[in-house]
Amino acid sequence: MQLTAKVKEILSWYEGENPGVKGNLARLLMNGRLAGTGKLVILPVDQGYEHGPARSFAPNPAAYDPHYLYQLAMEAGLSGYAAPLGLLEQGADTFAGQVPTILKMNSANSLAAGGGDQAVTASVDDALRLGCVGIGFTMYPGADACYGMQEELRELSREAKSKGLATVVWSYPRGGKVSKDGETALDIVAYAAHMAALMGANIIKVKPPKALIDLDAAKATYEKAQVPMGTLPERIAHVMQAAFAGKRIVVFSGGEAKGTEGLIEEIRQIRDGGGNGSIIGRNSFQRPKAEALDLLDKVVKVYLGQA
Amino acid sequence: MQLTAKVKEILSWYEGENPGVKGNLARLLMNGRLAGTGKLVILPVDQGYEHGPARSFAPNPAAYDPHYLYQLAMEAGLSGYAAPLGLLEQGADTFAGQVPTILKMNSANSLAAGGGDQAVTASVDDALRLGCVGIGFTMYPGADACYGMQEELRELSREAKSKGLATVVWSYPRGGKVSKDGETALDIVAYAAHMAALMGANIIKVKPPKALIDLDAAKATYEKAQVPMGTLPERIAHVMQAAFAGKRIVVFSGGEAKGTEGLIEEIRQIRDGGGNGSIIGRNSFQRPKAEALDLLDKVVKVYLGQA
Amino acid sequence: MQLTAKVKEILSWYEGENPGVKGNLARLLMNGRLAGTGKLVILPVDQGYEHGPARSFAPNPAAYDPHYLYQLAMEAGLSGYAAPLGLLEQGADTFAGQVPTILKMNSANSLAAGGGDQAVTASVDDALRLGCVGIGFTMYPGADACYGMQEELRELSREAKSKGLATVVWSYPRGGKVSKDGETALDIVAYAAHMAALMGANIIKVKPPKALIDLDAAKATYEKAQVPMGTLPERIAHVMQAAFAGKRIVVFSGGEAKGTEGLIEEIRQIRDGGGNGSIIGRNSFQRPKAEALDLLDKVVKVYLGQA
Amino acid sequence: MQLTAKVKEILSWYEGENPGVKGNLARLLMNGRLAGTGKLVILPVDQGYEHGPARSFAPNPAAYDPHYLYQLAMEAGLSGYAAPLGLLEQGADTFAGQVPTILKMNSANSLAAGGGDQAVTASVDDALRLGCVGIGFTMYPGADACYGMQEELRELSREAKSKGLATVVWSYPRGGKVSKDGETALDIVAYAAHMAALMGANIIKVKPPKALIDLDAAKATYEKAQVPMGTLPERIAHVMQAAFAGKRIVVFSGGEAKGTEGLIEEIRQIRDGGGNGSIIGRNSFQRPKAEALDLLDKVVKVYLGQA
Amino acid sequence: MQLTAKVKEILSWYEGENPGVKGNLARLLMNGRLAGTGKLVILPVDQGYEHGPARSFAPNPAAYDPHYLYQLAMEAGLSGYAAPLGLLEQGADTFAGQVPTILKMNSANSLAAGGGDQAVTASVDDALRLGCVGIGFTMYPGADACYGMQEELRELSREAKSKGLATVVWSYPRGGKVSKDGETALDIVAYAAHMAALMGANIIKVKPPKALIDLDAAKATYEKAQVPMGTLPERIAHVMQAAFAGKRIVVFSGGEAKGTEGLIEEIRQIRDGGGNGSIIGRNSFQRPKAEALDLLDKVVKVYLGQA
Repeated sequence: MQLTAKVKEILSWYEGENPGVKGNLARLLMNGRLAGTGKLVILPVDQGYEHGPARSFAPNPAAYDPHYLYQLAMEAGLSGYAAPLGLLEQGADTFAGQVPTILKMNSANSLAAGGGDQAVTASVDDALRLGCVGIGFTMYPGADACYGMQEELRELSREAKSKGLATVVWSYPRGGKVSKDGETALDIVAYAAHMAALMGANIIKVKPPKALIDLDAAKATYEKAQVPMGTLPERIAHVMQAAFAGKRIVVFSGGEAKGTEGLIEEIRQIRDGGGNGSIIGRNSFQRPKAEALDLLDKVVKVYLGQA
Repeated sequence: MQLTAKVKEILSWYEGENPGVKGNLARLLMNGRLAGTGKLVILPVDQGYEHGPARSFAPNPAAYDPHYLYQLAMEAGLSGYAAPLGLLEQGADTFAGQVPTILKMNSANSLAAGGGDQAVTASVDDALRLGCVGIGFTMYPGADACYGMQEELRELSREAKSKGLATVVWSYPRGGKVSKDGETALDIVAYAAHMAALMGANIIKVKPPKALIDLDAAKATYEKAQVPMGTLPERIAHVMQAAFAGKRIVVFSGGEAKGTEGLIEEIRQIRDGGGNGSIIGRNSFQRPKAEALDLLDKVVKVYLGQA
Repeated sequence: MQLTAKVKEILSWYEGENPGVKGNLARLLMNGRLAGTGKLVILPVDQGYEHGPARSFAPNPAAYDPHYLYQLAMEAGLSGYAAPLGLLEQGADTFAGQVPTILKMNSANSLAAGGGDQAVTASVDDALRLGCVGIGFTMYPGADACYGMQEELRELSREAKSKGLATVVWSYPRGGKVSKDGETALDIVAYAAHMAALMGANIIKVKPPKALIDLDAAKATYEKAQVPMGTLPERIAHVMQAAFAGKRIVVFSGGEAKGTEGLIEEIRQIRDGGGNGSIIGRNSFQRPKAEALDLLDKVVKVYLGQA
Repeated sequence: MQLTAKVKEILSWYEGENPGVKGNLARLLMNGRLAGTGKLVILPVDQGYEHGPARSFAPNPAAYDPHYLYQLAMEAGLSGYAAPLGLLEQGADTFAGQVPTILKMNSANSLAAGGGDQAVTASVDDALRLGCVGIGFTMYPGADACYGMQEELRELSREAKSKGLATVVWSYPRGGKVSKDGETALDIVAYAAHMAALMGANIIKVKPPKALIDLDAAKATYEKAQVPMGTLPERIAHVMQAAFAGKRIVVFSGGEAKGTEGLIEEIRQIRDGGGNGSIIGRNSFQRPKAEALDLLDKVVKVYLGQA
Repeated sequence: MQLTAKVKEILSWYEGENPGVKGNLARLLMNGRLAGTGKLVILPVDQGYEHGPARSFAPNPAAYDPHYLYQLAMEAGLSGYAAPLGLLEQGADTFAGQVPTILKMNSANSLAAGGGDQAVTASVDDALRLGCVGIGFTMYPGADACYGMQEELRELSREAKSKGLATVVWSYPRGGKVSKDGETALDIVAYAAHMAALMGANIIKVKPPKALIDLDAAKATYEKAQVPMGTLPERIAHVMQAAFAGKRIVVFSGGEAKGTEGLIEEIRQIRDGGGNGSIIGRNSFQRPKAEALDLLDKVVKVYLGQA
């Protein structure tokens, strides 16, 4: 596999990692239509666990079949596919070696009250036997359970890396001192990205930040330093800065399903701010396949600089 | 990674393996110039351990530097590179993700008397942290230590597979009831391939067989069954048959350094007999790089059906 | 699965075993045409490992494909199929749940000099993941390595039983004070069965005994006690007695390939002596399938009391 | 269970042991007709393993059934029953809690040449799950394998005691500098008892010693110290002295089958010399049950001081 | 600790190692009078174990006290001090943090027959609790026990590195196909260095090579390749080449005690050939302290280029 200069540069940032982890990051960065660009588009499907099957798949019933999700990621030429244990198992053999997969290690369900925790639902050895390139983990900084979640992450990440797997962290602040609206405030998202980097995340997933500072204690700093935040590219750039001066891969969610044009425009701004890519879930698998492939084609073209 | 129909067929033969193992077999089968053909050419460098540095590298001193060996495998567009711990470590970071590697788990040295054993010199976790696609192990059926070696292989293979790594077995009968000349007799090589398959090898490496039956007890069978063995392709076909009716990947060594034309002709016959490929060590790394690349180009072309 | 009174009685003999082991014995005793009779006919295929592929499969080349062997056991309506790791793996998925399997844990090869040892070539966890009902192990009482083999058996048996798997022991005295001819002497075979029972074997496999006492030290006892041994049924009865007064399942091999009529007559006498069944390897898989099915039909009919 | 003063005194000698081990010693010392006397008569049945089934059970075929052996020990009112894994398993459930059992951990067979080793054929966890009070182990000081056997004993004894089980050691010198005749010489038997005590045996089993000094190096010492050895009671007293000045339980075998009166007289002398009891195997289970019970009644009466 | 460009370059060669190992190599390379030069002089004291205390320390009785040995290394401004468990323990607290130490993991004694093996006498955790920078291990390639020793080294090295400790290997061929005189032949020493590198040694210790080729099989190669070997610097250069083209640290022993001038001249040639340094044991600690310090001052000056 011939690595591009861009991918080699990215790998060089991960000086603390062993060749196994770097090799798996390379597999992800060299797969699909964005291979070699340093950009990533990943299909995540943890909605079924989190919101139930009907809310996830009824809009496009073909997606009830786990094979459909593998095929969607492959046909769209995405970088990789992330899902919980059951979804990956139902397809890992059929599609072995055909698309990089990330095993989502913890899962929330919307029957539980609260919403500030998740269950660890897979093991690192599962990821190895399923042939994954890495593990995925969600943490909720601010939530009552946040320290426990971080300790789970620390242990899973340590084991995963020692066995050559990359670690992808969904860092979603909520609860505690974080207001509901503030979950996507600039200071909170930057803080989320930074905390994930500090815990050793190889790839960090956060939400696009709003022009808002949520923590009172942070407001003076942001004012004094005059951090630019008027435009989304400026805010993305600040988040990248918080991720070790841009030396960690950061990808952004598309958030709630929205119109295609709105989504594409947001992704264009993520790209312009220096973000490494997007994770596109509901916006893709809840549409009929043809429409989903059309949307993902547009997204990929944005990161290829063609749109 | 788009798998070809041929590679999918090969993977379908490994019904006992988990997706991790199949994924790593796919990485090997989809790398380099032979990607997707179901054929493999692998660079093995365990000569330094087995015969000492000068006998291995003095003919082409550039090869004293471990980076050279990675580069040779990559520039020649080979399927993969197999070597002991130290050689892989000294390059695994620089070339992370650029060429599938196989960690050779045991090593002989030619200072020891006897020659019927090897030391286990690496662990499965080493293979994981170095980002290898599999482990390699040599066994000597017939040798005094053969049962012990097989027990080491069983344990390493079990651990490797449970962690998604493929197992490559060098099956080289010697000692016991095997005569020196008989080490490459047809019955012995077929037995060697069969035994490796029975022990769970995913890829089997044997030597090209001669038109000779070594075990007295086997002669009547070969005569009665009239197993064709007059030509090398016929003998290769018999070895493939012994490997679960052709459902295991079997690659052949080039043996002692010989003239280029002789080597290419032999490889042509291995191909015609249905062999999956070649392992080319001394014949390549002991020549100046340009000559080595030229030779390897010829070898690859044979398996591409272009020569 | 409705157990017959006969099977319930047999299970009642194994009072030391946990329900998992008893359940797996029941699966074996309730499978195939002999289901519920307390009789067993098992297909063992370890010849390829022990004598090489050609000597094993050249007489009937279809048997080079491991699937053939599963199919033979199933089509013949046998109780179960016993084989080494590689053979079981290459079919365990396709035929999952269709025939009880026994993983042969150790294997000899005929390239090694001596012949008084085997290599442990599988693990108990392999048997579990392949869905086997039990493990199989060969010991050679009398051989130089006999104490080591017994220690391997003890450890594998302990682990297997703790995980609910049955233990099948091939008890074949050789070497030490046992003469070549004496390997099938009555005192030796009875001793072999007794020793296996003492080590906790659930099913014991021995060879049909001859009217011969091999150990000088045992001759006086046999004379004084006037143990009947003139006919094979009498000798079989003595072996059963040595197996905890008939409270262990004992099956007999057919030995070297012989004429069909001779084999059937021998089996009739094993049945008449109270033996629990037969293990039929080479005599079946080395014949064309139709002939093999015909032979196995005859064997089954003997144990059904129909021939 | 109300302990007698005698049993409390004996337990007080084992100051290095935990309460679990002492409790199990108490169970043995408080069972059967000798309960509370500090004397022991144990039924050992390892003859089947060591000499084969016919030499062991043909004289009294009822003994082929393992249940018979439990019943014999119970009906005779013995202190306990010692046997290998298979024999104990075949009865442990039926007779659970009815007689203290000792699991014999290693076993010799008389097919093997040499005779200076045994196979470890059970595990400490087996003893626990079978409800035994202790483990039994044979060592052969002097044999080529003696260091290995002692390392096995050390490890098994350490594990057994840590789990509350008592350790019984059969200490039978043979080989090395020990002459055949000297195996029961006074110096050798005393040394055997001492070595077992040094290795942590809770109960020591040796053979009755002859009036002979076997090691040249020991002769001067025995002469100079004028150790009394003219009578068996004197020799027994010396052996007890060698067992930490009598602070270890030492029991004696009856050796080869002999006439009833000779056996009873020997036991009377063992008692008079201060021995703790006898292990009576072949002399009991090879006789018809009524005769065996009669004999054992006589033996017990000797230790009760009634004969 | 400010690293010099030379030390940074050396660390860059160890691309397979984690930062913990690199940090400990840096501690060694930045200590004493040679700090930062890329050269090392180490005091090893394993003579007491190998030859007994009197043969080791009677010539300079002050050295019976382990503190003396720490002090000698420190006062001489050496790079580090290597010794077995007992010697390091007796001083590790007093001199904590004052001199880098290497725990010698295996030890020979001259009472044992044979001489081709050593006992592992320490653990990696001992090295950690004693604050060592690395572990030391001796292997004897060629000896009957060589494969076992290499397996011990592999396991100890894997554990040591995973815990951030460097691995130092004494690679001393003997036995097997190596003649007594050939133990220091050029081909043998180069092979010894290469094998250590392949096993993952961070620092390799060999003996200065003689102008001799010992293995018949290697003679043709050396002649054909015309490897320069007339002078010691040429031979040292060949050994360095065998150590991954000079990318491993190789230090040389001073061998048998010899005159000061002879020793200094040899070290000058080791330096000129590109060797990384010397290990000076008996030549220093068997002299009175003032003489020893004088000698070590001369040695250090050679590596500083001042003599």
